[in-house]
Amino acid sequence: MITLTSKDNAQIKQAAKLQKSARCRRQTALFVAEGLRVCADAMKSGAAIETLFLTEAALEKNTEICTELSACAAKTFLVTPELFAHISDTQTPQGVLAVIKALDKSALFDTIKNGGKFLVLDNVQDPNNLGTILRSAEAFGVTGVILSADCCDVYNPKVVRGSMGAVFRLPVCTAEDLPQWLTAHPQLHTYAAVVGDDAQRVTETTFEEPCAIVIGNEGNGIRQATAAACRHRITIPMNGKAESLNASVAAAILIWEMVK
Amino acid sequence: MITLTSKDNAQIKQAAKLQKSARCRRQTALFVAEGLRVCADAMKSGAAIETLFLTEAALEKNTEICTELSACAAKTFLVTPELFAHISDTQTPQGVLAVIKALDKSALFDTIKNGGKFLVLDNVQDPNNLGTILRSAEAFGVTGVILSADCCDVYNPKVVRGSMGAVFRLPVCTAEDLPQWLTAHPQLHTYAAVVGDDAQRVTETTFEEPCAIVIGNEGNGIRQATAAACRHRITIPMNGKAESLNASVAAAILIWEMVK
Repeated sequence: MITLTSKDNAQIKQAAKLQKSARCRRQTALFVAEGLRVCADAMKSGAAIETLFLTEAALEKNTEICTELSACAAKTFLVTPELFAHISDTQTPQGVLAVIKALDKSALFDTIKNGGKFLVLDNVQDPNNLGTILRSAEAFGVTGVILSADCCDVYNPKVVRGSMGAVFRLPVCTAEDLPQWLTAHPQLHTYAAVVGDDAQRVTETTFEEPCAIVIGNEGNGIRQATAAACRHRITIPMNGKAESLNASVAAAILIWEMVK
Repeated sequence: MITLTSKDNAQIKQAAKLQKSARCRRQTALFVAEGLRVCADAMKSGAAIETLFLTEAALEKNTEICTELSACAAKTFLVTPELFAHISDTQTPQGVLAVIKALDKSALFDTIKNGGKFLVLDNVQDPNNLGTILRSAEAFGVTGVILSADCCDVYNPKVVRGSMGAVFRLPVCTAEDLPQWLTAHPQLHTYAAVVGDDAQRVTETTFEEPCAIVIGNEGNGIRQATAAACRHRITIPMNGKAESLNASVAAAILIWEMVK
């Protein structure tokens, strides 16, 4: 295994750039998975590992998994702890990082007419929220997730980590023009999640398949054009005094009610 | 209004220490609320503001609320932006920070025999989780929250902010010895939340009042002594492949099922 020591190495430069830049991820169709568990999740899901970076310490501590990862990777490099810190997005790096080919999940779009329970996200911005939402969607058995083009990048390192591997396993697609996409799928029963008493309570809603709950931006909710393209409006009834729920909590409650 | 400029000022030193040290918060029975909205929430809830720190810019931008806050505060100081950054716990400080007297909510313990729906947290460690859980508990109308003594401090600045003011309005108490406390309240129907097929599904559970759901640590779940002191074991049934839910998502689903 080759040991890298310089920040000027092309592989190191690319990994560092993929961590920071959504544009770079889009242009190269690559992204980064960091941490032993996340990388192992990626491998188990059959993701194609382009480059694996390991520190000596990580290789010694978790020899078996690191060797397995390395066998799956097209290239493996050992890096010094200092250099690893340069490509890491975490405060306490584990010394395991993989550059992975973005997965093509556009086949999801073809299956919608056959039924299923979907989640549609309109301009969700916070990577921690998006990661948690994907994790909940997978845990509760959502069929797939459709994102508006201006959602937080699904391959943002915080999303990849926060989703606990759901990003590898769950079908996730982007709709370039979400209102148009919704209109183009008239067979889909769409439920726009809103705050307010004039919407149907989610507890009193029967979800007809194929169905999709549409969730909006953390601060501003669903955009008008998106809401207008939905058939129903639903809301989470609240007994308490708080004005709103955390976005990933609201999404979890809605998913829970849709799938159970 | 006096303008403070030195880090050595006793008020500044205290505020900075209260942000960082749970021990200092316990010893002084004071804590910090930061941000315009959080401070306004504290004021509306009748919290006693000991000291208010404002920057000139904050006072100009939100004169009305800042003046109201100042009228409620025992003391108000103007501070320079540099000094404010020193006492702030956020990356983009708003220039409004209050030192507040910790609220005595131990009266909660006396009301339990009269009914209600409670949440018990056993060694929940992450301040972001705790803040989100308190926010959900308030939104869904939980009667009160009981924390084990080793939970994250409820007056941790991240909890105060993440709870969106719930920490001021929701009755929250600490049980010094949680298993003993549970045993000492035999009238309470206690439901330990666990992962596993051998527990009752929360969807098939009827919660009898007064009731309490007990939620454990993010990584390790409920401790054995705590679980042993509970009458029932409940679980969230999951359709998907994920091994677990985010801790604050799991708590929200359980609260939702208890109160609805």
